[in-house]
Amino acid sequence: MPEENVDKPYIVTCTAPVNIAVIKYWGKRDEDLILPINSSLSVTLHQDQLKTTTTVAISRSFKEDRLWLNGKEEDITHPRLQSCLREIRRLARKRRNDGDPESTGLSHKVHICSVNNFPTAAGLASSAAGFACLVYSLAQAFGVEGDLSGIARQGSGSACRSMHGGFVEWIMGSREDGKDSVAQQVEPESHWPELRILVLVASAKRKPIGSTSGMQTSVQTSLLLKHRAESVVPRRMDEMIQAVRRKDFSAFAELTMKDSNQFHATCLDTYPPIFYLNSVSQQVIHLVHRYNRHYGESRVAYSFDAGPNAVIFTLQQHVQEFVNVVQHFFPPDTNGEDFIKGLPVTHAVLSEEVRQAVSLEPMPKGINYIISTKAGPGPRVIDDPSQHLLSADGFPRKTL
Amino acid sequence: MPEENVDKPYIVTCTAPVNIAVIKYWGKRDEDLILPINSSLSVTLHQDQLKTTTTVAISRSFKEDRLWLNGKEEDITHPRLQSCLREIRRLARKRRNDGDPESTGLSHKVHICSVNNFPTAAGLASSAAGFACLVYSLAQAFGVEGDLSGIARQGSGSACRSMHGGFVEWIMGSREDGKDSVAQQVEPESHWPELRILVLVASAKRKPIGSTSGMQTSVQTSLLLKHRAESVVPRRMDEMIQAVRRKDFSAFAELTMKDSNQFHATCLDTYPPIFYLNSVSQQVIHLVHRYNRHYGESRVAYSFDAGPNAVIFTLQQHVQEFVNVVQHFFPPDTNGEDFIKGLPVTHAVLSEEVRQAVSLEPMPKGINYIISTKAGPGPRVIDDPSQHLLSADGFPRKTL
Repeated sequence: MPEENVDKPYIVTCTAPVNIAVIKYWGKRDEDLILPINSSLSVTLHQDQLKTTTTVAISRSFKEDRLWLNGKEEDITHPRLQSCLREIRRLARKRRNDGDPESTGLSHKVHICSVNNFPTAAGLASSAAGFACLVYSLAQAFGVEGDLSGIARQGSGSACRSMHGGFVEWIMGSREDGKDSVAQQVEPESHWPELRILVLVASAKRKPIGSTSGMQTSVQTSLLLKHRAESVVPRRMDEMIQAVRRKDFSAFAELTMKDSNQFHATCLDTYPPIFYLNSVSQQVIHLVHRYNRHYGESRVAYSFDAGPNAVIFTLQQHVQEFVNVVQHFFPPDTNGEDFIKGLPVTHAVLSEEVRQAVSLEPMPKGINYIISTKAGPGPRVIDDPSQHLLSADGFPRKTL
Repeated sequence: MPEENVDKPYIVTCTAPVNIAVIKYWGKRDEDLILPINSSLSVTLHQDQLKTTTTVAISRSFKEDRLWLNGKEEDITHPRLQSCLREIRRLARKRRNDGDPESTGLSHKVHICSVNNFPTAAGLASSAAGFACLVYSLAQAFGVEGDLSGIARQGSGSACRSMHGGFVEWIMGSREDGKDSVAQQVEPESHWPELRILVLVASAKRKPIGSTSGMQTSVQTSLLLKHRAESVVPRRMDEMIQAVRRKDFSAFAELTMKDSNQFHATCLDTYPPIFYLNSVSQQVIHLVHRYNRHYGESRVAYSFDAGPNAVIFTLQQHVQEFVNVVQHFFPPDTNGEDFIKGLPVTHAVLSEEVRQAVSLEPMPKGINYIISTKAGPGPRVIDDPSQHLLSADGFPRKTL
């Protein structure tokens, strides 16, 4: 925070991405510090399609810390929000004590305003992008630098992976204080430009159980989860990192599908069992395996988080046909105009051969729409002041 | 086979029961001998509701071994049928060589005719009852005695458990020749008369993958199945046997549900994954857990095999209310007259309290009907010749 602006709010705006784990995180060994029982690996999605934007303002005139999410004021006393605020302020204080004059405004209150560019109802995990953006923005505002993934982790475990672009590893660490449980980039987003990602937003009747309480119950009751964390994931992490480095899509695809399935298997082994895959998800899984079997290779992979949406990984050259397959077996409500959002996908008629190879009974309206995207960069500072979500007085703009 | 009847067919008719595993069998360590990767435990269902009836005729006038299943002639050269025939004849030969004159007719061909008293379309595993009945009937015809579970096992793994009534353990054994992989009774059906069993026959669109190929794929691909077989099941077997011996319904119920869930978890961890639980099964699972939670105890347990049907275990005093709950949340097609088959269940109005505690969205026609039954005895010889499925000449009766 520049010294000359202490009388009016200092405002900074940042954006941060969503990430999708291909080696899944499920289960904490420490609930407060959010330390996982296994390492995980994710792909950061491009912010052109999915991002959180957060504006932080700090001013000596603010009476209290305040927070607005998607246009509505929210309770800032939530313990995980407080963890992030406390940790950023602690780092800023440390920096000032070390003699860095940039780190001031420590006694000032903050106003935080955050929006997603995708509907919360889509069931996309927004907490990772949200906490990554919060921590990145606060760090900018308080002049804190260095690795912030350990702080984002304390907001929401998977948020630490959204602090980097491309392919990101969250190393579980072994220290009790969690200092070595951080995210680091395996490869940047430029590493594998042919990789494409499709988010299949599924219709769901029932709101699934939240991941925080779900993974607690799993850790307490699933004997298979313990085995997975201790004996399966360490080797898979190595294999996945190698697959990413070599850009070996077939290996990447199979590991991704196996790990998604194993995560959901541990949910089913939880007592009482947790179901995130509904009949639409099952149909997507069948469809992908039949499609791959038809070509005798893994051209497409699925991954499911704590909800029925499918995230599809494939290579550029297969996107068009696979989207046509999806559109055929999940006939959209409309004539399909709004069915594909994001990166353009040209429509073509699905070949009779592929249609017969897949040959599932179509599920009309099973998928609401597809978001077409790719791997993207980590959090960014937005230099254009017109993008601030807080006006010059530090309160939400009227247009929100 | 009595010596005086060598010129006309010697005919014997037997019945055998279905069994439901509460500690599941999934995976073979030897495909030919059908040796399992873990022990299992089952409850034998009462033959008043579900049984296979098999008539075996042997005669020197028969040209070849022949088989009729549910009124249709089938290929008797199926390897597993041949295994059972060969093993029974081998035992009979051994017995004759030991000087027992009862074991004759060894060079004679057999005619076998078998029917189920339940529709195959119900998706109830009929192979266990079928092979148990075949082996038991052949043994009667050829004058073979002693433990036959090891032979039934070679027809269909779970058939060995149908060779006994009540509560039955299939000990996996460790010998390579499988001689110690046999079933034995833990407690007879009279041990726990209050225990009641409801088979909820679910409607299913898709025919699920067969258990033989399913478990092969699981053994080859699921890392969790290996862990389950080696590290989870041995302790669970001990706990389940204790629960049965003590008639501790709460312990029995929880182990039953956990083991069913873990079996389906290993199916999901299989690659490509196998789904046996559909949306109806998931609804039954939610319903049971909410019902139990309402009462603060495990009054009802579910178990699912390689299909969407639910098998419910409960105690006599809870049957009526639970059936009402099922009927409320799965409204039958008709007015409910044929909804409950088997042991009578009186209808009552479901209390508003329980309805609200469960509070799921009803799934009309999700369950076709309920078979109400209980634990029952093992295979039996039917003395009444009018019950023979083969007429005096050894061919299927016209009335079939």
